[in-house]
Amino acid sequence: MLQNLEYLFNPRVVAVVGASANPDKLGFHVMKSLTSGGFKGTIVPVNPGTDSIMGIPAFSSLGDFPGAIDLAVIVLPAKMVPGIFQECRQKGVKGVVLITAGFREIDDPQGAALQNTLAELARKAGIPVIGPNTFGMLNLQLDLNASFTPEFSLLPKGNIAFVSQSGGISHLVGFLAMRQNVGFSKIVGLGNRLNVDFPEMIAYLRDDPETRVIALYIEGMDEPRRFLAAMKNARFAKPVVAYKTGNSRTGNQASASHTGSLAGKHEIYAGALKQAGVLQVDSAESLLDAARALALCPLPGGGKVALLTGQAGPGIAAADVCESSGLEIAAFHPETQLLINELLPPLALRSNPVDMGPAWYNTQAITGIIQAAMEDDNVDGILLLMVFASANRDAVAGFSKLLFEWKQQKPVIACLLAPPGIWDEEIRQLEAGGALVNFPTPERAARAMAALWEYKKISSLEDRT
Amino acid sequence: MLQNLEYLFNPRVVAVVGASANPDKLGFHVMKSLTSGGFKGTIVPVNPGTDSIMGIPAFSSLGDFPGAIDLAVIVLPAKMVPGIFQECRQKGVKGVVLITAGFREIDDPQGAALQNTLAELARKAGIPVIGPNTFGMLNLQLDLNASFTPEFSLLPKGNIAFVSQSGGISHLVGFLAMRQNVGFSKIVGLGNRLNVDFPEMIAYLRDDPETRVIALYIEGMDEPRRFLAAMKNARFAKPVVAYKTGNSRTGNQASASHTGSLAGKHEIYAGALKQAGVLQVDSAESLLDAARALALCPLPGGGKVALLTGQAGPGIAAADVCESSGLEIAAFHPETQLLINELLPPLALRSNPVDMGPAWYNTQAITGIIQAAMEDDNVDGILLLMVFASANRDAVAGFSKLLFEWKQQKPVIACLLAPPGIWDEEIRQLEAGGALVNFPTPERAARAMAALWEYKKISSLEDRT
Repeated sequence: MLQNLEYLFNPRVVAVVGASANPDKLGFHVMKSLTSGGFKGTIVPVNPGTDSIMGIPAFSSLGDFPGAIDLAVIVLPAKMVPGIFQECRQKGVKGVVLITAGFREIDDPQGAALQNTLAELARKAGIPVIGPNTFGMLNLQLDLNASFTPEFSLLPKGNIAFVSQSGGISHLVGFLAMRQNVGFSKIVGLGNRLNVDFPEMIAYLRDDPETRVIALYIEGMDEPRRFLAAMKNARFAKPVVAYKTGNSRTGNQASASHTGSLAGKHEIYAGALKQAGVLQVDSAESLLDAARALALCPLPGGGKVALLTGQAGPGIAAADVCESSGLEIAAFHPETQLLINELLPPLALRSNPVDMGPAWYNTQAITGIIQAAMEDDNVDGILLLMVFASANRDAVAGFSKLLFEWKQQKPVIACLLAPPGIWDEEIRQLEAGGALVNFPTPERAARAMAALWEYKKISSLEDRT
Repeated sequence: MLQNLEYLFNPRVVAVVGASANPDKLGFHVMKSLTSGGFKGTIVPVNPGTDSIMGIPAFSSLGDFPGAIDLAVIVLPAKMVPGIFQECRQKGVKGVVLITAGFREIDDPQGAALQNTLAELARKAGIPVIGPNTFGMLNLQLDLNASFTPEFSLLPKGNIAFVSQSGGISHLVGFLAMRQNVGFSKIVGLGNRLNVDFPEMIAYLRDDPETRVIALYIEGMDEPRRFLAAMKNARFAKPVVAYKTGNSRTGNQASASHTGSLAGKHEIYAGALKQAGVLQVDSAESLLDAARALALCPLPGGGKVALLTGQAGPGIAAADVCESSGLEIAAFHPETQLLINELLPPLALRSNPVDMGPAWYNTQAITGIIQAAMEDDNVDGILLLMVFASANRDAVAGFSKLLFEWKQQKPVIACLLAPPGIWDEEIRQLEAGGALVNFPTPERAARAMAALWEYKKISSLEDRT
């Protein structure tokens, strides 16, 4: 099965069963996703009613295509799917993305019966199936957009894999990521989880070289023990961060109805996820923020943070978040403090947080302070918080060289915020060069650092067992 | 004093004392702010060393200008400021923005002494002074940017007044607002608060017709009783929302050092602010979100919310936030539920939250559901949560007419999220037409609704006293 998942996510030939030239049909949007995404492999539209779709030769059935087919994306009505599964088996298809809805999620018991039939067919054929009732999946590193949303092809490539129990949350996270320039390796909508569920995805992604962090959106689980076993097997090979909803009374009921699985009490899930070594967050925004920090920063050796700021206010706001989220404001080594006192006028906040504002025009002083904090053994991570004002346009350029060379030997999390068009290129280069990760507010930067330290503690606990 | 604040914020003639053509000087940036901001009044550069600055005739002193001067923006070194204050008094200047630093905030006792001298001079002259040690202030409705940050002129106009104890947080909030298209009436950096502090600003803004919501960033207060008195006097004329930092041990110490005023225990401040009828938030992002909701929505009559969603996941995430923030998920009136059941197939979540996804192609059904929820007496506010997928490009256009006509007789808070360029114009028009306010995630939309209900409860308490 894992071997076939490898084909499913890295196909050379993808068939779209139910491909269509009619924009009212999902089969049109899937074709558009595949063609607009830049996929380098072969696309095979399957539709008995036409010779070609979007200029690509169409075939009347899977069997009619002369070569091998790795992945079949199915968008036909539910009642036709068992027949297609038989064809997939005969053709030797390695994996299926089943977008079609109308199975276990509907009120009608025939839906559940049909899903059971499919499960049995897929088991016999050894075919992994993403779905049914999913928007699809993406392997961005392969430019493969096997979903009904062509706009997902605009997503940046990166090292975060996102596995989601909700198509709505997948789209939400994807569109937020586009606006924040967060990159993904893979995005997978589990849908009704015929035979590919969280445990299978964790096992697969554990060994996926393109994935550095696994992000999950969870509403409920059918088999928590299997999840725990998969996590145990992954043994902190890479960080797993999860956003679990359905914690409220209403949310819980709606979630049970939505995914057809037990949502269950929040406390039980929270305990189980913690035991499994999963970092938990409480919003879609935090899921992205924590995943980005885990993907782009080393883990801190401890929870002691240096707050280096361009203005006092953001430093104070970040200090509040740090202390309430389990971080410590580092007490500098006396030598560090001495050096900082030499570099800043007496009017500044010079102990931690350090208000570097009065030295804006002095690149050497700013660089000296940052370097002293980096090299201080009492400091486990740096929060660099600077808000643009006209007089400090060159500030970021001034300390970039040091950050590029330092390359986050300890995590450097920043809030460098400016009007649109100012500092954007400097920040992009710093992130691309692995010199820091940037967030839009000091509070979110501080929470991201807290997430790193929280995950470090979770993984250290595991090391001892 | 209030009369002179009116001149200060609505001047016809603004002098810049210390205006400069040298980009290394703050006097250059202030001139650039005023000239690039589109201010329609007269700008008077004051600098004895030159005939003109940026093509505008310069004068060697305030007295040399032949006409009256309403506002003087001062950017000269601290030791020269007492002399300039004397000139202001002789010239009959109505108000001062004192950008210069080097007063109470420095370690040197001479700074405090100089500030006391200025306070006495300003008191005698009856001149309100914003600052010292401030970035300045803006009256966006007048295109007046009297700050050292020309980029602030890019801010949209709106009905939120922001009064801040930190220049850094002012810039942070301003740049976030630019990216989120949040509009302001006025932005004021209090600085060292020579004689204009929170109480004076609250009293002034209470009667400012351009301000619908007063947003505050607070680190500490010298005279909490004066604040309470000012709030009592404002008696819920308009909502006041505050972000108070310095709550942690470190934040508290840094804050005391930064603003020179008592920060004090968080619990005491929280209690006092609540007693004063101030809505409290815990981040810069939440401050903007709550202020936007208060500026653009009516208050709900109760805490019962309808969750109308395009996908189940975002509805479940929002339900969690609603229940944990004091809102109730409304139980629909039986007639409403009957109507919704008729409009949606049995496979959907049809009680609250309502998953309208299966009816995407049916504009009449979507519109019918929204209208039924709006007209239901059991519903106090609507959360409308829809994430774009290719098949629902026209969804927003489909229900826009109804929302425009309804004009938020109850608050309508939305998370309509799409890739950049899709739905942007529809959402802009809906917000401009007062039909809804839009947020980037379902969680933030739900928290904004909770803020409205929280403020409604705070103001109702006051009504009873």
